[in-house]
Parts: sequence; structure tokens; C-alpha cells
Amino acid sequence: MTALVSQGHDVVTFDNLSRGDVRNLEAAIATGRCRFVEVDCADLDAFKAAIRAALSGQRGRAIWHLAANSDIPAGVADPQIDLRDTFLTTFNALLAMREFAIPEFHFASSSAVYGDFGDLEIAENTGPCQPISNYGAMKLASEGQICAALESCGRRASIFRFPNVVGAPATHGAIFDFINKLRVDKSHLPVLGDGTQQKAYLHVDDLISAMLFIAKAGQSKINLYNIGPRDAGVTVRFIAECVRDVVAPNAEIIYGRGDRGWVGDIPRFRYAIDRLAKLGWEPTLSSDAAVRRAVRDIAAAVAP
Amino acid sequence: MTALVSQGHDVVTFDNLSRGDVRNLEAAIATGRCRFVEVDCADLDAFKAAIRAALSGQRGRAIWHLAANSDIPAGVADPQIDLRDTFLTTFNALLAMREFAIPEFHFASSSAVYGDFGDLEIAENTGPCQPISNYGAMKLASEGQICAALESCGRRASIFRFPNVVGAPATHGAIFDFINKLRVDKSHLPVLGDGTQQKAYLHVDDLISAMLFIAKAGQSKINLYNIGPRDAGVTVRFIAECVRDVVAPNAEIIYGRGDRGWVGDIPRFRYAIDRLAKLGWEPTLSSDAAVRRAVRDIAAAVAP
Repeated sequence: MTALVSQGHDVVTFDNLSRGDVRNLEAAIATGRCRFVEVDCADLDAFKAAIRAALSGQRGRAIWHLAANSDIPAGVADPQIDLRDTFLTTFNALLAMREFAIPEFHFASSSAVYGDFGDLEIAENTGPCQPISNYGAMKLASEGQICAALESCGRRASIFRFPNVVGAPATHGAIFDFINKLRVDKSHLPVLGDGTQQKAYLHVDDLISAMLFIAKAGQSKINLYNIGPRDAGVTVRFIAECVRDVVAPNAEIIYGRGDRGWVGDIPRFRYAIDRLAKLGWEPTLSSDAAVRRAVRDIAAAVAP
Repeated sequence: MTALVSQGHDVVTFDNLSRGDVRNLEAAIATGRCRFVEVDCADLDAFKAAIRAALSGQRGRAIWHLAANSDIPAGVADPQIDLRDTFLTTFNALLAMREFAIPEFHFASSSAVYGDFGDLEIAENTGPCQPISNYGAMKLASEGQICAALESCGRRASIFRFPNVVGAPATHGAIFDFINKLRVDKSHLPVLGDGTQQKAYLHVDDLISAMLFIAKAGQSKINLYNIGPRDAGVTVRFIAECVRDVVAPNAEIIYGRGDRGWVGDIPRFRYAIDRLAKLGWEPTLSSDAAVRRAVRDIAAAVAP
């Protein structure tokens, strides 16, 4: 939102604050060009009423739909969470796009739509998508519903397939968890799985840059892009060691067993971003640089 | 259901009868091995209560989930119809699979998950899936949810990607529409679109045969198969002429404009079924033979 405000747009943010924090919008709100409305986007009537009030007769230009349940294990334990927070929010935002004749829809999807392709490098046309978490399933469902909706309303949509993203402020993820564990016990860092899981990580600043780029440059009806770094990623062991070095250099890292930390976790992951490179965007940070910077920033933010 | 009963299984059928007709189950029910329960599968509490009552302590062996909204234009006009009847029925059936520890899940998906790939021959790994109807979107959503659910419950699932299916009894579709139009006006047959749309059609008897085959032979966790004839299909013109020849040989066929009959219609469609052939199944009827037989059977069934 802050980035959209910086580009000169007026922005209204709708969120139920189940995982968000309105303090993250303070800088944007201070500009006078960003408003915040607390509403549950999964409640269609409330959501539409909130949009109607916010627009007050003006024409909306674009919906940026970033809301979702971000706690994948919670969604595995109770599929209703992802149904409501990850899918019905999309479904309702598309109904709002139709009702308020909003021409653009930009959507935060996820590499979780793909499922486990092992060592295969995953491109946008890799299939079949067989997500292994309810989160990934409801992101895939959202993508499908966007494509269908664009047949009868809206002018164009972006679908951003996020990789693992790191940066501050963090609410979850390996870096956040490791830092919090070491705050409690400075001598031991227990790690889920054997540490060999390897994934690509993108810094949140690069992610925002990529989304703004695609939203502007992608002029197809459906603009579907993997977003990620160009490298093959880093291991959980690398992340654990980064966190240890910054937070508690003398801590012992204790690994678990197996190459999956939890149901819905994918041990290896290779992501093709050639399509986005061809459109003209490149990340500024590799996975290791993104993780190093995120560890510093998150550790500073959660300093005791 | 009748086919499952013929194979010696005890079957309980759950349906809200919004588009079905319990008379289609008469032969199966007469065997004493098939029961029918009227319930809305999109109503989780009612659906689970109905399953619990039907099982009465016994262990369920498999869920065959065939319920969906089959009126694609209705779903385009009101996306809530496909959300409820096509997706939430799947979502709830998967929750039932978990709750009642049912090991198998067999699902009627659709070629509509793919969207419009033009002249490309579509295989199971063709992507990205970009459905152009809410029906297709909610079938894709169902597939994703099945894959995710199988991570934590169930032993294996089949996903049958149906082609266009023809045969009696029919409740919708080009053949059914054309016959009914000619019943009303024996001299003219108006056709949506210019008649050049070409699609593959499978006879319903072949479809049932393929599903039973995959359910038995597919021993992966997720068994995803395109089901269809081997040919490139027949045109709407061919179907219109078949119907005219059987129902009203002197009628004039009047074509519309454009190569799409309605939103969500795909003008051309080529379907690869090599994967299913490799598993060991082949259709007995080509598209033209399937259409000819279906025209005869449906015309006989709806005879005035």
C-alpha cells in the first residue's frame, strides 16, 4: 500500500486484522492518501458495503487482493480457515470488481499452487498443479476464479506467484521462528526437519518492485508470473546458521529428522522466472543476500 | 451408481435433486443394494449427518463425488451457484472423507479446468489452467482441494477430467437442446454460433467404463486422467445435422454468428488421452458414433 501511495495513488485498505497490524500502514496513512477500513472480506455484504462507502460514488481503478491466511499448518488442521480467508476473500473481491466495474485485479498467488515437482524447475506452464496444502489449493482456486471472472468483467488481471518471501515486519516463517526461539533459549536452536530443505527466498522489497512492474507492464488479459530470485535457493541449515550468527553465536543448532518440516512443506523447490525476466524485471538480491538482510532487519525489529 | 451396484458394491447416493431425478436410480434401487438419500451436500452438517446415518457404524470404502452444477451459463450469471454446488460439495465431501476415515475418493472433474488452449492438444500436464467459466474454476478448485486433502487423510484419489459427454438420459447440452427446439418448431433449428465449434464427445457408457477402470487400475495417490475419444471431435454443424436427420429431416438449420455459443464456451478443443491409453483403457465409440447413438437414444426418450 505504501508503495502504491508513493506512486501517487489514493488507496483504501480493507482487512480483518486477524494477522495484520494497522501500524504497518502508519507511514502511508500519514500521507493523507491511504485510508484503512477494518472489515472481514470473507463477509460479502459487509465487504461490499465498505467498498461502496469508501468509493462514495467515485470509480475504483484497481483491486490489489493480498489478504489470505498465511499460517499454512493452521489451514491444514482446519481447512475452513483457508476456504474463508484465502478463497472466499478472492471470490468476494471478484464479485466486488463486477459490481463496482473496477477494471484491474492484482492478486498475490503463491508457488504453493504447484505442489511437489521435486527437482524439476517450475515454470508458469508446469502442470498439473497438485497443491499439498489447503493454502495452496485455495490460491489455485482463486487463480481459476479470477480467470473465469475476467471473461465477463474487468479488463485485466495480474497473478503473482510468490516464492518464499523474507523481510521485516515478519509474522511467521523460519527466520522469525528461529529468532524467537533463540530469544527464549540462547544456547539451543531446535530446527524442524534435518535442515536440508532448500528453497529460493525473495526479499520483500524485490517482491513489491516486481508486483508494481507486472501490474504496469503486463497488458494481457491474464498476466501470470512466477516471482523469485534467479538462484536455486538456500537450505534451512543456512538460515539457521545466519540467525545463530546474528542472535546467539554460541547456540547449538539441533536438527530434527526427515526433509519435511510439516504437512504442506516442500523439501526442494526450483523456480523459473525467465518469463518475468523477459518482461524486463530482475531481482536485486539473491536468496542468500535476501536471507542475510532479513535476518538483520527482523532481529533488530524484535530486539528485546 | 448402477454400474457400481453391478460390480457388487452397496451404494448410498446423496443428492439434492436440483438437477437429478431419482427415477434414474430405479433399476439400481430395485436390486436392494442401492439407497437414495435426498440431502444438500453443500450443507456440511446435514451432509455429515446423512452419511453417519447411512453408514450406521460400518466403514465406508469410497466416495464417488459426481455432484455439480451442470448449467455452465447459469454459473456464469451467478458465480454463487458453482461455488455452492460445484465446489462446496467437494469441500464437504473431503471433510466427510476425513471424518469417516474413507480411504478412496473418486471425482468427476472436467476438461473445463484447462481453459482455451486453441489448437494445442491438451494433456494432463498442460498448463497453466485458466478456466473461462465459473464451473471450470470450481472444478479446478476441487482438484486442488483433493490433492491437499490427500496429504493428511485418505489413501488415494481419482480425478477424471471429463470431455463433453453425450447419451441418455440428458438434461442439457446441444443434442438435448436441438431435439427440444425441433419438437416445438419442426421447420427451423436455430443454432447458437456459426456451427464451426469442434469438440470431442464421449458416450456416457464409455465414460462409466473409463471411471471404473481408473478407480481400479490407478494405484497412485492422485490418479489424474483425461477421459475422451481418440479423435479430434465433431462440429456443432455435424450434431445439428444428425438431430435434424432423426427428428425433422425437412427442417432448415439457421446458424448464428461467431465461433462461441456462450461465455465459457470453447470453440475448438483437442484432448490427449495417451496417459489413459497407457494405463490400458480405450473408448469403444468415436465422437461421431457417440453423437449418432446419443441422438437416437435421446430422441427416443423425449418422444412426444
